[in-house]
Amino acid sequence: MAPYPNLERIGCPADVRALDRRELGTLASELRAFLIESVSKTGGHLSSNLGTVELTIALHHVFNTPHDRIVWDVGHQTYGHKVLTGRREAMTGLRHFGGISGFPRRCESEYDTFGTAHSSTSISAAVGMAVAARARGEDRHAIAVIGDGAMSAGMAFEALNNAGDMENLNLLVILNDNEMSISPPVGALTKILARMMSGSTYNTARRVGEKVLGVAPPVAELARKVEEYAKGMIGPGTLFEEFGFHYYGPIDGHDLDALIPTLQNLRKLKGPQFLHVITRKGQGYKLAEADPVLYHGVSKFDHTAGIQAGKGGGKLTYTQVFGDWLCDMAKVDPRVVGITPAMREGSGLVRFAREFPERYFDVGIAEQHAVTFAAGLACEGFVPVVAIYSTFLQRAYDQLIHDVALQNLPVVFAIDRGGLVGADGATHHGAFDLSFLACVPNLVVMAPTDEDECRQMLYTAVQHPGPSAVRYPRGSGNGTTPQAQMRALPIGKGEVVRRGRGVALLAFGSMLQVAREVAETLDATVANMRFVKPLDAELVAELAASHELVVTLEENAVIGGAGAEVARVIDGLAARPRVLRLGLPDRFIDHGDQAQLLASVGLDQAGILASIARATEAPERS
Amino acid sequence: MAPYPNLERIGCPADVRALDRRELGTLASELRAFLIESVSKTGGHLSSNLGTVELTIALHHVFNTPHDRIVWDVGHQTYGHKVLTGRREAMTGLRHFGGISGFPRRCESEYDTFGTAHSSTSISAAVGMAVAARARGEDRHAIAVIGDGAMSAGMAFEALNNAGDMENLNLLVILNDNEMSISPPVGALTKILARMMSGSTYNTARRVGEKVLGVAPPVAELARKVEEYAKGMIGPGTLFEEFGFHYYGPIDGHDLDALIPTLQNLRKLKGPQFLHVITRKGQGYKLAEADPVLYHGVSKFDHTAGIQAGKGGGKLTYTQVFGDWLCDMAKVDPRVVGITPAMREGSGLVRFAREFPERYFDVGIAEQHAVTFAAGLACEGFVPVVAIYSTFLQRAYDQLIHDVALQNLPVVFAIDRGGLVGADGATHHGAFDLSFLACVPNLVVMAPTDEDECRQMLYTAVQHPGPSAVRYPRGSGNGTTPQAQMRALPIGKGEVVRRGRGVALLAFGSMLQVAREVAETLDATVANMRFVKPLDAELVAELAASHELVVTLEENAVIGGAGAEVARVIDGLAARPRVLRLGLPDRFIDHGDQAQLLASVGLDQAGILASIARATEAPERS
Repeated sequence: MAPYPNLERIGCPADVRALDRRELGTLASELRAFLIESVSKTGGHLSSNLGTVELTIALHHVFNTPHDRIVWDVGHQTYGHKVLTGRREAMTGLRHFGGISGFPRRCESEYDTFGTAHSSTSISAAVGMAVAARARGEDRHAIAVIGDGAMSAGMAFEALNNAGDMENLNLLVILNDNEMSISPPVGALTKILARMMSGSTYNTARRVGEKVLGVAPPVAELARKVEEYAKGMIGPGTLFEEFGFHYYGPIDGHDLDALIPTLQNLRKLKGPQFLHVITRKGQGYKLAEADPVLYHGVSKFDHTAGIQAGKGGGKLTYTQVFGDWLCDMAKVDPRVVGITPAMREGSGLVRFAREFPERYFDVGIAEQHAVTFAAGLACEGFVPVVAIYSTFLQRAYDQLIHDVALQNLPVVFAIDRGGLVGADGATHHGAFDLSFLACVPNLVVMAPTDEDECRQMLYTAVQHPGPSAVRYPRGSGNGTTPQAQMRALPIGKGEVVRRGRGVALLAFGSMLQVAREVAETLDATVANMRFVKPLDAELVAELAASHELVVTLEENAVIGGAGAEVARVIDGLAARPRVLRLGLPDRFIDHGDQAQLLASVGLDQAGILASIARATEAPERS
Repeated sequence: MAPYPNLERIGCPADVRALDRRELGTLASELRAFLIESVSKTGGHLSSNLGTVELTIALHHVFNTPHDRIVWDVGHQTYGHKVLTGRREAMTGLRHFGGISGFPRRCESEYDTFGTAHSSTSISAAVGMAVAARARGEDRHAIAVIGDGAMSAGMAFEALNNAGDMENLNLLVILNDNEMSISPPVGALTKILARMMSGSTYNTARRVGEKVLGVAPPVAELARKVEEYAKGMIGPGTLFEEFGFHYYGPIDGHDLDALIPTLQNLRKLKGPQFLHVITRKGQGYKLAEADPVLYHGVSKFDHTAGIQAGKGGGKLTYTQVFGDWLCDMAKVDPRVVGITPAMREGSGLVRFAREFPERYFDVGIAEQHAVTFAAGLACEGFVPVVAIYSTFLQRAYDQLIHDVALQNLPVVFAIDRGGLVGADGATHHGAFDLSFLACVPNLVVMAPTDEDECRQMLYTAVQHPGPSAVRYPRGSGNGTTPQAQMRALPIGKGEVVRRGRGVALLAFGSMLQVAREVAETLDATVANMRFVKPLDAELVAELAASHELVVTLEENAVIGGAGAEVARVIDGLAARPRVLRLGLPDRFIDHGDQAQLLASVGLDQAGILASIARATEAPERS
């Protein structure tokens, strides 16, 4: 690493507070350079972290952390915060097995006051902390730092609505407005924020600064650039003022001379305060400024040369298989539309959005709305495909049950990131979906074992007249090229892919490959079950009748997952071989390489063989 | 029933449209009188239905239903709609087994365009329908009718944010503002709505009416009454206008001469429209106007005399046991606070709110925020008790996993209405919680078998340093009086309550009573398992070793419920008796009397005995 003489003197935020205000600019430059170099070596989130360098320094300089609580929404912008709070050297292990997390974690540092990763939780948590401080009469600030994308989620609205109604809360909400969540911003809120940055607003902002804060915020460089925006029809911050907050801003979030006096003044105020800060993702790194989406989440790269175009020839990811399928499907079936809660890139919808703009709906970070919106479309004869990550579907669980499944509507859930996702860790693993979906009546749940089967299952889902879900993992499968021709699979039918003796391995989705390897060692039978629901009870019965041990394999919590129903079927049979259910253990699983993680939970070949050996030899200890 | 000559001539909404405007007042009077008489005989929701009589008539008179789509949010205000859409005579079976539902259902009528019951889904569904109409070039209106309480949920905000950003949507959102959800209104939105009804707003509303609608809405009687409200600081509807809607109102929702011309004019407009209607719950029935909470949901009563005070002496409900416990607990433990998402009455928090106003938090209809707000409080050393219905906890599933369980925070979930709830039906049964909670790491899940155990489990939950849930049914238990003294139960320990032979009945929560009855017939062993998680594996092993059949009993989906883990434990033992898992079948269960419903799914004594007989005699057919 290059030398960072000033940064290296910062052991904790008290050292930031001890610095003279004039020294902070140098610290910001070094921190930014350090982050670029460090992330280029480990991979991780880049654009968002470059956008919050000055804000991070200003917050730790002005507020008495960790006594004052900072809650970072989403938390992928906290690398600077980690560096300033004693984790500079630990950055070499960022997002790696055994290393520090890419998100704030309470167990990692007392400065990480609240673990985040899923969007839009920060205001709720900060309100809780502020209420606690008020109850105890503690002079403590609770600060939520939330992006404009995250602000579009209903949960943030619920928190604003609640907080604005409370009295004497020492609560500061900082809207980090970079006009970009991971996907480009959508929704009415975006237009409101744009209006706030219009010329008339800028003037009002200056007046507010003079009058209320007692300082004249310097001309906001970024705000000036947007003076050509349509003239604001309303005053600045009306939306937030309506919720009972005092609104200040917008100010330039890269200008320490604006940030620090503003925060110092806000620190003296009581009641819910709202500060609107304009930042740019990728700020200070020309390549990331030019393409913040490309530099949003990166693998290792040469930070001087920048990210080089892919070499090509690699395997398709499931995400790509899905994206291509959706385009092909839409071409032949006019009923099909695509819906994403603000994950156009992550869910593989870039091409679909371009080719079918009228049938593409990015509803913002709004999983609840996404699913019920889909239900409304389905009532009118459309077949909506909701592209969603497994872990984010948890946000729309009630809507899936109450609005889709109960009404038996043909909504297709294309569930990406089912199973262990790797570097994003515990908050992003799709560890529970098979458990929380299996109990929902009317729902068909499929899990493909390779890329072609994924495509055929998605097609099957569209043909099915009720609700269905196809759940596939992050990354690639075994490299099977999807066939252009689409055909519907028989609902609820699995198939035997290898005949052996003694042990029957019933694999769900991604586990088929390792099941085949295990089977070679044991001469076991292997079935690709395909359907978690409805389960192929006939196949289970056939295999139960002809084997001594039935092993279920799934990349999902072993509690309540696919194996639970296999065991129930077998418990109703005359011949009842022992059932060994293998899946994710009953604990949250950290970040790391996917293969490492699977091995750590005993779902690699060696682990599965060991479990089978234990079950066969001394069942009571298995 | 009394004669309702005009109402009886209405077979469908076309008959309402055929009426002269001057005849609609008489129809409204008869409809209101009919609803009072009918609901007094069947029980059901009353106040909300009396508040929407005129709005219902006006909507069906002006719009071409069912071609135009009306989506009724929550749907407990649709009795008038049901009467006008061919279900007048079916009202005698309202909410009864085999009769019509208390909520709109697509399978019940083509006029029920979207099934509702959980709050705040209507705008999302209507947006979906409006997008579908736009895509097909159909001249069709989509109308969401949503209360002011429901508007506080994040989901409604997500839908507004999305809809306001779309072009050419024929969407009308009608805010039915009766200043009361089930609990009194809370949140900043309430204040915003109050400002809109201020004097200055009323004048603006009249001007808007003259200018835009071409009619002068008559003086709104209710609006006049609130002229003494604080002068509005902002124009009417700014909040909704900011989201891209055209705002009209407020108008008097009981004045057909205001409603009908306004709706007729709105019908001609394109783009997202927002109409603010002021109504009064219980309107036209003095007793309900005076106490709309008492008349919100009623059992049979004499509609002339009104609801009489309870005779006393009845059994405590679990809700009351919880409410009393929370007050007692708060007295001895200053860390304890209570949180409700707008269900003060339903969750039994009226006394707590009165005795501990500083520690009582009604956050509005905002389940997501409620849980993460609790997590924030827990970070600061408080022990928040989130009182929530099982079915509404589905709304906060992600927050429970990501914000509470992952951080291992001591939040207590007091889950009411676990299992079959009766007359509210499929949307309200707590059928899935044990399945979706069992897979969550770190969480302790308890289910009491009687009132005293419920109290002791709640106490146990507060003592436990991590997250925990106590799940209890609607209504009463066996009448056991809770002991004043509180004691912590050993975590993960069940107990044998009857020793028998051959069959071991492992009962979870509410099923203990019927298990005892079954055991008397069979001379079976009965265990009160107490903990769904962690499961008492030792007890399971002991019973497995000494019985031929293990039967698990739970009032939860049999898929993935408590029994699934019992079977997994047994599959790891040397001695493996057959396991018969009994619970709710894999379908949505309709409304009706709780006992009837339990019998219909085979969870009464006869059903359980029959299942055991089948499993014992011919397992492969069980």
